[in-house]
Amino acid sequence: MPATTPCDIIFTMTEYKETFIEGGTVTSPRGFKAGAVTAGIKKNRTKPDLGILCSEKPCTAAGMFTTSKIRAAAVIVSEENLKEGRASVIVVNSGCANAYNGEKGIIDAKEMISLAAAHTGVPVSDVLVASTGVTGQLLPMDRIREGIKKIPLSADGGHDLARAIMTTDTVQKEAAVTGRNGTAAYTIGGIAKGSGMIHPNMATMFCFLTTDAPVETGFLKAALKKAVDMSFNMISVDGDMSPSDTVVIMANGAAGGETIQAGSRAAREFRRKLNAVCIRLAAALARDGEGATKLIISNVTGARNLKEARKVARAVVMSSLIKTAVHGGDPNWGRIVAAVAQSGIDVGLSDIDMAIGTVAVLKAGRPLPFDEKDVIGVLRQADVPVSIHLNMGNGSATAWGCDMSEEYVGINSEYMT
Amino acid sequence: MPATTPCDIIFTMTEYKETFIEGGTVTSPRGFKAGAVTAGIKKNRTKPDLGILCSEKPCTAAGMFTTSKIRAAAVIVSEENLKEGRASVIVVNSGCANAYNGEKGIIDAKEMISLAAAHTGVPVSDVLVASTGVTGQLLPMDRIREGIKKIPLSADGGHDLARAIMTTDTVQKEAAVTGRNGTAAYTIGGIAKGSGMIHPNMATMFCFLTTDAPVETGFLKAALKKAVDMSFNMISVDGDMSPSDTVVIMANGAAGGETIQAGSRAAREFRRKLNAVCIRLAAALARDGEGATKLIISNVTGARNLKEARKVARAVVMSSLIKTAVHGGDPNWGRIVAAVAQSGIDVGLSDIDMAIGTVAVLKAGRPLPFDEKDVIGVLRQADVPVSIHLNMGNGSATAWGCDMSEEYVGINSEYMT
Repeated sequence: MPATTPCDIIFTMTEYKETFIEGGTVTSPRGFKAGAVTAGIKKNRTKPDLGILCSEKPCTAAGMFTTSKIRAAAVIVSEENLKEGRASVIVVNSGCANAYNGEKGIIDAKEMISLAAAHTGVPVSDVLVASTGVTGQLLPMDRIREGIKKIPLSADGGHDLARAIMTTDTVQKEAAVTGRNGTAAYTIGGIAKGSGMIHPNMATMFCFLTTDAPVETGFLKAALKKAVDMSFNMISVDGDMSPSDTVVIMANGAAGGETIQAGSRAAREFRRKLNAVCIRLAAALARDGEGATKLIISNVTGARNLKEARKVARAVVMSSLIKTAVHGGDPNWGRIVAAVAQSGIDVGLSDIDMAIGTVAVLKAGRPLPFDEKDVIGVLRQADVPVSIHLNMGNGSATAWGCDMSEEYVGINSEYMT
Repeated sequence: MPATTPCDIIFTMTEYKETFIEGGTVTSPRGFKAGAVTAGIKKNRTKPDLGILCSEKPCTAAGMFTTSKIRAAAVIVSEENLKEGRASVIVVNSGCANAYNGEKGIIDAKEMISLAAAHTGVPVSDVLVASTGVTGQLLPMDRIREGIKKIPLSADGGHDLARAIMTTDTVQKEAAVTGRNGTAAYTIGGIAKGSGMIHPNMATMFCFLTTDAPVETGFLKAALKKAVDMSFNMISVDGDMSPSDTVVIMANGAAGGETIQAGSRAAREFRRKLNAVCIRLAAALARDGEGATKLIISNVTGARNLKEARKVARAVVMSSLIKTAVHGGDPNWGRIVAAVAQSGIDVGLSDIDMAIGTVAVLKAGRPLPFDEKDVIGVLRQADVPVSIHLNMGNGSATAWGCDMSEEYVGINSEYMT
């Protein structure tokens, strides 16, 4: 992007302006069902907390899990089950993370898989499990045994499942798009949870994706990794901090058409569509960060390369000082310069063009004349775009974050008690 | 330390139990004077904001500055002036950081040096400058010209200077100890500021140290680096995030005795004393973090090596989730495990022994029976020690942090406006 004035660099995400299906969710692709019940795992026993997502047909599947060195039982068991690149059922609970429970945790996670396999009629080797909630406490297996039996599975149950995986989330996160694979039309759908997206943070992130396109396993895995890198990994420093973070995609081929393989035109389209769903869900997570009132969109262009662009974009949305300044409507652009300066790339003040919303504030490191009221106006918007052009190369990246409010502290002071 | 039960690893810092001089400060060593005035640089024009620290005799000196890629004018100019390892005057202001001001910032920083040189009768090459406050605004040079002329310099002016460098700090940070160099007794004194010690954070940290011991420049530099690594660098992730961070030590030799050189017994004692002053000031900074109500002391033993011990110790005090849990008195030890797990070292749950205060909570990764009320009691203390033993080797380290309160967000939402 040949940006010559800061006004040129004002945020646009045209390449991801996809048309999303109204009300689209993880059961929008053909042949997927879902449902949830209130099993009494959450402290608040009126909220749904146990659900299943399943495909009527066997699926190719891929997953990405937390990079934390100490992982929850569900992650250990699910990663093992995904080794063959196949899975058609996910059973998930909120209210208890089943983390740090040693061998008993593994036994319970495996029992959840067995129960879900029995309920859906699928082999245990095709079932994955995910758990989120308080760590260091055992799953209430009696309630889970009772609950799984009662989970209703329907072709529009995605909404119920999206609600059942919420913890401190305030809204459900769902999205779906359609794509073409030769003459066959397919759908990609997804749901996500993960409210606590403030670094350094261990709140669990889940994203469950489905598609009725037929997709070759190796390509599916590679496409998922790329999509996660540009979406969920751009809303937190390392993407995977909780012991339980899980992203899974299942492709059941119900839409027909040729199997999508790497290198094809269909593969490129599939990637673009998958990226769009993941970005949509990631931005929704950032917007719903604990105590958040605003979405911060950090758009970096003109970096030396993609890696450096990502570093800078993330540094902006991770800065507590920027998050609080945005919250308070404080037009303190110096804090953005400081975040760029300590992002880990080699940069000088004169490299930086900057705009806040549509207000250009810096050109080659020199402050431009602007009306402070205009910046304050941008900071009052629900979406606050910050655009940084580095005049170094063609690397560009976008990161998403939220403001930091007093409420964030309130929520996290009393999570357990 | 052969820790076999978590109770063995409970926090002790015996090696740094130094006797500090009651009311000791940066002018406690012989031959140093300081003073401050209210020049009207701060928005609140009733608070002191401009001061000078000076030695009656020429000093050997060493400094450490921000590692940020974009540095404030004062840092650029001071680092240049310190190249010969000599400095005997520091002029410092709060209220305006003189950062991101391009060439004009450099000119103003140099003029501050000239004015301080004229006022103290020292060559400009022996004068350093430091500025903290809002970035992106020019220094009010007219007020600074008037102000510097009026700065009173006295042998007990250290307290006034400690007050003048405060920004969002709520208390002055001062410390001094005595040591022996052969038959000569010497003193090391210091003052510091830097309230906003919450990562990722760009609040400025200053520490100005003095000693009347005669110290060889190369050794002084090495000793300062080691002291900073185990103190100020253990209260923030990279130590130096603000464009202005500055630590300086000046040694004027007024106490007499042989020049302290590396490798001697006197050098070892000097190091220990310097470490003690820096640790005392660093802990004081952490305790006075913006909105802080408690000090978190993270003590790690049994790590593979020093580097890994430091990583883990810092990860604990940097975690927003731990900081908020400590604030709310929430006995959520799972968050501490999660911080250890994502600290970047290779670690498993079964490697971890943990105590909160004197309450052992984990042994080889297994939860121990403990009364939740006891942990809540520890979390209500002003000092909250968290002890982690990793059963891997002999690496140990301590980091200091503060809890995170709603007030932190309030302070940082309205810094400029």
